[in-house]
Amino acid sequence: MSARTLHLNLFVYPGGHHEAAWRYHGTDPDRLLDIGFYQDLARRAEAAAFDAVFFADGPSLADNVRYASRFRLEPFTWLSAVAAATERIGLIATASTTYTEPYNLARLFASLDHLSRGRAGWNIVTTGAPQAAGNFGLDEHPVHAERYDRAREFVEVVTRLWDSWEDEALVADQKSGVFADTDRIHEIGHSGRHLRVRGPLNLPRSPQGRPVYVQAGSSEDGRSFAAAHAEAVFTAHQTLRGGQDFYADLKARAAALGRDPGRLLVLPGISPFIGSTEAEARALHAEFDELTQPEYSLQLLRRLLGLDLTADQLDGPVPRRLIETEGERGNGSRFRLVLDIIDREQPTVRGLMHRLAGARGHRVVAGTPEQVADQIQEWFEQGAADGFNVMPPWLPGGFDLFADQVVPILRARGLFRTAYDATTLRGHYGLPRPAASPALR
Amino acid sequence: MSARTLHLNLFVYPGGHHEAAWRYHGTDPDRLLDIGFYQDLARRAEAAAFDAVFFADGPSLADNVRYASRFRLEPFTWLSAVAAATERIGLIATASTTYTEPYNLARLFASLDHLSRGRAGWNIVTTGAPQAAGNFGLDEHPVHAERYDRAREFVEVVTRLWDSWEDEALVADQKSGVFADTDRIHEIGHSGRHLRVRGPLNLPRSPQGRPVYVQAGSSEDGRSFAAAHAEAVFTAHQTLRGGQDFYADLKARAAALGRDPGRLLVLPGISPFIGSTEAEARALHAEFDELTQPEYSLQLLRRLLGLDLTADQLDGPVPRRLIETEGERGNGSRFRLVLDIIDREQPTVRGLMHRLAGARGHRVVAGTPEQVADQIQEWFEQGAADGFNVMPPWLPGGFDLFADQVVPILRARGLFRTAYDATTLRGHYGLPRPAASPALR
Ligand SMILES: Cc1cc2nc3c(=O)[nH]c(=O)nc-3n(C[C@H](O)[C@H](O)[C@H](O)COP(=O)(O)O)c2cc1C
Ligand SMILES: Cc1cc2nc3c(=O)[nH]c(=O)nc-3n(C[C@H](O)[C@H](O)[C@H](O)COP(=O)(O)O)c2cc1C
Repeated sequence: MSARTLHLNLFVYPGGHHEAAWRYHGTDPDRLLDIGFYQDLARRAEAAAFDAVFFADGPSLADNVRYASRFRLEPFTWLSAVAAATERIGLIATASTTYTEPYNLARLFASLDHLSRGRAGWNIVTTGAPQAAGNFGLDEHPVHAERYDRAREFVEVVTRLWDSWEDEALVADQKSGVFADTDRIHEIGHSGRHLRVRGPLNLPRSPQGRPVYVQAGSSEDGRSFAAAHAEAVFTAHQTLRGGQDFYADLKARAAALGRDPGRLLVLPGISPFIGSTEAEARALHAEFDELTQPEYSLQLLRRLLGLDLTADQLDGPVPRRLIETEGERGNGSRFRLVLDIIDREQPTVRGLMHRLAGARGHRVVAGTPEQVADQIQEWFEQGAADGFNVMPPWLPGGFDLFADQVVPILRARGLFRTAYDATTLRGHYGLPRPAASPALR
Repeated sequence: MSARTLHLNLFVYPGGHHEAAWRYHGTDPDRLLDIGFYQDLARRAEAAAFDAVFFADGPSLADNVRYASRFRLEPFTWLSAVAAATERIGLIATASTTYTEPYNLARLFASLDHLSRGRAGWNIVTTGAPQAAGNFGLDEHPVHAERYDRAREFVEVVTRLWDSWEDEALVADQKSGVFADTDRIHEIGHSGRHLRVRGPLNLPRSPQGRPVYVQAGSSEDGRSFAAAHAEAVFTAHQTLRGGQDFYADLKARAAALGRDPGRLLVLPGISPFIGSTEAEARALHAEFDELTQPEYSLQLLRRLLGLDLTADQLDGPVPRRLIETEGERGNGSRFRLVLDIIDREQPTVRGLMHRLAGARGHRVVAGTPEQVADQIQEWFEQGAADGFNVMPPWLPGGFDLFADQVVPILRARGLFRTAYDATTLRGHYGLPRPAASPALR
């Protein structure tokens, strides 16, 4: 087995990642709110020795929930129940630095890490959907740069909270009567531009010290944030070249900050349609696309590109010149990615719709198990990925195909573990447990 | 079996409720952060057909953690993992209306209710400990009246969020392609003195519609809040007379607001030391008191009464005239309760220390299983309680004694169920599932 091996997460989404997944006959729409469904899914991923399950999140309701399973399972509660049903697999929760209080967030992660015995990861986002603002008393979603400014301060604060109990602070010596060595518990006394937090946290340091820091924004601000703070990065790329550029850029930025680039894993999304022949895989993909609804996609294009189109424009070209490329929207990496598709492929509106239906801009591959494994190996060996965020088109069937047919090939090629050799998410990712940062004096 | 029967919760506290519980030889201090310990405890309570397990909470670290197990397990993560290990028992999480965002809190409870299939309860508190303020960017803990003012608005907002999806809004019809009937999902458009929240929630209405509303403040403001909003009230009383007065007052307030007083359960705390003889029970209690540490109690008196005493004053009388009875402190019901003990019993400082060590002001009883059952029956039949929040001095042993020895007596007397006849916390408490309040037009 080669020294460097793949990291694989299962990105969980109610129903699956294709926007019409919930309509597919292999999906049971009655189980989308059933925790047993997600526990079972995590057990399957654990049986395949996946590094982690990952839950996305946002504190608002998507405007196109009429046509797709776009409600939001709350990640902390959901993953805590998943933790109780599993032993080894990592648990990555998305949480916003824009719409949470750092003290509350630090507690949720420390507790998740304690109860899972060291399996928590934090996908740090600034929240993409602007409609969240209205749920938190704001007139406007803070602009991109401002969100990242708060994010930087936020990460500093929660890091200090997680480190506010030294590892040796919990004594619990029945004889002497010392429960905690309060000389080893420290206020953090933070006072900054966005936040003021005294601390200390009200919980001993957790098994991993801190959850694994994951980041999922690929804009300029997002990259520089990731280079400084992230230990794993989720990203979306359509082409090997795009993936390589991003990978090289991010590793270089981390190195320039004095970090070991090997401790910053780049994990693009991949949504695989698997068939016993390539034709069968493509037919399966087409079957999903036929279940899509134009109203859903038109709303997506409105939100993503600011394009206000109607159903009778579906078979015309995408009106490129109506897309607003400046300002807030232009900062987003997902926006840039869609713009690249339009410029490269010149699709019709319907073509673009189908292009995005699979995984909202993430790479969709359709092929035999060998072909899918080849794609994965190529990106992994050609400097575009340290592993993948696997986004099955539908669940659980789409994951089972991957686990049963692609994973054995990856193993045979020495690219993926056959069993866990660690018990924490840091262990699976090859990351050290961080020492507590020194206390303020 | 008589129509009216007891409701029993297990109030879970790391180690147990006696402040020295963690030092007792029957307690394993290495398991206080082990989720398996709490899952096992909940399974024991479920085997005894208890209504619920209850977790207290506060977003700050207690100043006397040096001497006692006063860290805070985060209730949502912890109870979600407990939910995964149980089937029927209710799960009551304490959460603050002062230090959380209503949108985030509404999601956590809706998710807990979904994943537990209708077992969530919310202990609504305004947060007692003033040091929380520093963890949330505030100079001062908002004053009592202001906290309750926000609490009233907060409950209105989260109620509307929980009702923002009508029960029929989730359609998930694969054929027609309608996932959610957006005509049945409503913005709440709240704009008030403390909060602005647009909604809707990003999750379908939960099995119970809303979590059970529990309240735990007994001050004037607390009572009027409870009369208006609560479905169960946790309270602390030392004497039957005190319990009866509170019970009658609260039921009358609810009736005056046009509510059915039967749908407002009053559940005082009780901390039982159980022995095969009364002398044995008293000896057990004394054994715990011997493990207490003066430094801990002196800090408690400082915080609770504003008294700054030293160890050499332990055997003198409580300096009653130094206690500040006006202002903020004087509003708190726990303060009043301690003042009553001092006035009634004229204890020494050490005596008061031991009086409070058992359960922080809750009633401590020591006796045979029959005597403990008698006490419970007396309060239940004499108009002081609809049930109890059972606070074992140590865990799990102190609970096992209660479940194995007292519960069978209560059953033999027809006072407590032998098995669950419902599947939700509302069901156990005899409360109806609320219809969604009508949407704003
Ligand atoms: C795999 C992946 C998952 C993501 N999940 C979320 C999410 O759950 N919530 C969210 O607000 N943003 C999420 N994002 C990030 C947003 O899509 C968006 O990129 C970000 O909010 C803005 O950052 P950027 O402009 O730096 O890319 C995710 C991104 C990727 C690549
Ligand atoms: C059984 C019980 C449990 C309580 N748990 C909490 C708690 O977990 N967190 C909290 O801030 N207050 C809790 N309280 C309430 C506080 O003790 C205090 O009464 C409240 O914050 C102020 O309300 P009051 O002045 O109306 O009594 C609890 C009260 C009781 C009776």
